[in-house]
Amino acid sequence: MKKNIFYAQSGGVTPVINATASGIYDNYKKNKKSFGKLLIGKNGIAGAINEELIDLNKESKKEISKLIHTPGGAFGSCRIKLSDYKNNKNEYEKILNVFKKHNIGYFLYNGGGDSQDTTLKISKFFNQQGFKIQCIGLPKTIDNDLEETYSCPGFGTVAKYIATSTLEASLDVASMSKSSTKVFILEVMGRHAGWLAASSGVIKNLNNSAPHLILFPEIKFNQSDFLNRTQQAIKENGFCVVVASEGIRDYKNRFISASAQKDSFGHAHLGGVAPILAKLITDKLKYKVHWAVADYLQRASRHLGSSSDVRQAYEVGFQSINLLLSGASDVMVTVKSKARNGKWLTGSVNLARVANKERILPNNFITKDGYNITSICKKYILSLIDGEDYPPFKNGLPDYAKLKLNILEKKLK
Amino acid sequence: MKKNIFYAQSGGVTPVINATASGIYDNYKKNKKSFGKLLIGKNGIAGAINEELIDLNKESKKEISKLIHTPGGAFGSCRIKLSDYKNNKNEYEKILNVFKKHNIGYFLYNGGGDSQDTTLKISKFFNQQGFKIQCIGLPKTIDNDLEETYSCPGFGTVAKYIATSTLEASLDVASMSKSSTKVFILEVMGRHAGWLAASSGVIKNLNNSAPHLILFPEIKFNQSDFLNRTQQAIKENGFCVVVASEGIRDYKNRFISASAQKDSFGHAHLGGVAPILAKLITDKLKYKVHWAVADYLQRASRHLGSSSDVRQAYEVGFQSINLLLSGASDVMVTVKSKARNGKWLTGSVNLARVANKERILPNNFITKDGYNITSICKKYILSLIDGEDYPPFKNGLPDYAKLKLNILEKKLK
Repeated sequence: MKKNIFYAQSGGVTPVINATASGIYDNYKKNKKSFGKLLIGKNGIAGAINEELIDLNKESKKEISKLIHTPGGAFGSCRIKLSDYKNNKNEYEKILNVFKKHNIGYFLYNGGGDSQDTTLKISKFFNQQGFKIQCIGLPKTIDNDLEETYSCPGFGTVAKYIATSTLEASLDVASMSKSSTKVFILEVMGRHAGWLAASSGVIKNLNNSAPHLILFPEIKFNQSDFLNRTQQAIKENGFCVVVASEGIRDYKNRFISASAQKDSFGHAHLGGVAPILAKLITDKLKYKVHWAVADYLQRASRHLGSSSDVRQAYEVGFQSINLLLSGASDVMVTVKSKARNGKWLTGSVNLARVANKERILPNNFITKDGYNITSICKKYILSLIDGEDYPPFKNGLPDYAKLKLNILEKKLK
Repeated sequence: MKKNIFYAQSGGVTPVINATASGIYDNYKKNKKSFGKLLIGKNGIAGAINEELIDLNKESKKEISKLIHTPGGAFGSCRIKLSDYKNNKNEYEKILNVFKKHNIGYFLYNGGGDSQDTTLKISKFFNQQGFKIQCIGLPKTIDNDLEETYSCPGFGTVAKYIATSTLEASLDVASMSKSSTKVFILEVMGRHAGWLAASSGVIKNLNNSAPHLILFPEIKFNQSDFLNRTQQAIKENGFCVVVASEGIRDYKNRFISASAQKDSFGHAHLGGVAPILAKLITDKLKYKVHWAVADYLQRASRHLGSSSDVRQAYEVGFQSINLLLSGASDVMVTVKSKARNGKWLTGSVNLARVANKERILPNNFITKDGYNITSICKKYILSLIDGEDYPPFKNGLPDYAKLKLNILEKKLK
């Protein structure tokens, strides 16, 4: 009897993670004779722990075809980091039992650095138990912070949204600056890595054009230097556009954002740097400031998909099925670089080399003053925001997939 | 000698105010024999006061053709409300002198309710001085709060962006809600009128679908009722999506947002309702909350233009030239309704009937519970977000107009 595939989505979702699911589905269909069912975990690994499985073949083909342009995690995601086996025997054994009962022989897990760690841990446990399974990680993160891959699916679309939004807002503040607002601040995601903040830098074409100041988590925030430069930009251009990473920290390494809820990965949940910077400028420089916090608007911004990113997301999904067919395990699919025809080349890397790692901006991607990006960085980001992939619209609104997500009857009590 | 036209943009800009300029330009070109130059005030009425005039014919035709898809105010806007003549003789006389020296016989002013008041005041003053001029107001405001017009150019595009962004973010929070974020709050513009918050309601297709709670400035904010309903939505759906107007107020009529910088129209500059509501939910209900403040991202969101809105903006501009040709004065161009072919019908109304007025949401547009929109409201908003009008992109970024904005040599010292 052919073994079934288990696929799940993990961590913060992206505008194109469902395009990866779409790539998996298409190549699975092409190779249906080699596999059993394509089962999907509801809410990431929680679907395996709780035996909440969805059979993708039971969804309407029409809705499945919309996955490629639908943001969010269509099957639910999770922020669950499996602790080591010795502290968490129960969950590991639940997963094993569910996989056995449902005849699962292939595990595809789609996430960031923490999720690659989960895949590796589960694989090791299964191996110790003598349970035969192939485990493949698929990259996904808008933060672009996975090691060993040219880029992470999800980043390109969000980068395109941030660059476009910064350009648009800078036209707005430029119009208002003579008699009203002089500073616009956009807060973007990025706890430790400044890739998203950096993406705003691609719109800068002249020394005095926006964004005037990019605040990276890689660079310690210096209040007086920041205020001086803001003042200077206003003097030179009449206005100042600032793009700030949520994760900027002061010289004592404390987050500028005070709010620090923690998620179950132990990451501080940030947000609120923009209003703090706005108050600082209003208090010290007496200018009128507008600020925006993009939050989920950026992470779900599929209405302005980057074609380059959507293809990349699709291809890593498609490729994961080829890796299963080749017998591979304990690897993550990687993105190499674009082939001539705009198609991405993919590869693979041992999970151990990406699990729990975080790739920050290289030094040569940030200008010497610490407030902008270099031409190398610009070229890199431009390669990922190339082309516009719009979802279809119906009655003025995007026509996103609506799945039934019916849970299969449980075999375990 | 043919009289010149003076056009200027005023108040908070919109993603389509330049499409109005584009409509003016095209019809001016068609009727060139009837007019002198098309002069534009830099930074709204300030351009007339300071004799900073731009001759549109001196810009490149290629860049002018991009105005129809370029957000922000391409010629600069202003937040200047002319006080009465008796308190402000100097500025009125400066404007008169500039108009005389530059042979201006037509005044087109593009703004909201305050700007229509400015147009009317200037017209009355000119009349008293025996200076012959035709004064026409053109509607513009993302707030959709002008009286006597079916809608205001600018609203449809921002409404489309808010509806789309709310839909996208609701897919994101739905994915995360099982083990992480349970509430998403989006703060949108709207000081006194809830049109923009209302626009998020068009995505609601089932009782339990997002947005679960819309907070309108028209409805007093009741903290305990809000918390109960948030709790209830989470109980029923696993998550809750809230869209809040920046201008919501408590039962004592105080803005929930504490920050209250004032602009020169005397309006409080709001912002920061979302983090306040987020803290409330975290403190009282102990849920993880994500929040976004759209601010200029919504107001400049031309990358997702509503075709309906762009046409409307263009047509009011085009029509203003026909009104000049017909000898009209002291009126504002209005939008009537769509003709069968998707073209908007326009009309006009006396400036006195729109100056300083503000149209809030009618009672029958808000559901009885005060937290959502009715089907009448939905139908109205859908008529304005119809169709997608994307700007052209170049190297992954929108190709927006870059004007030189050279100031004409001054004739007054």
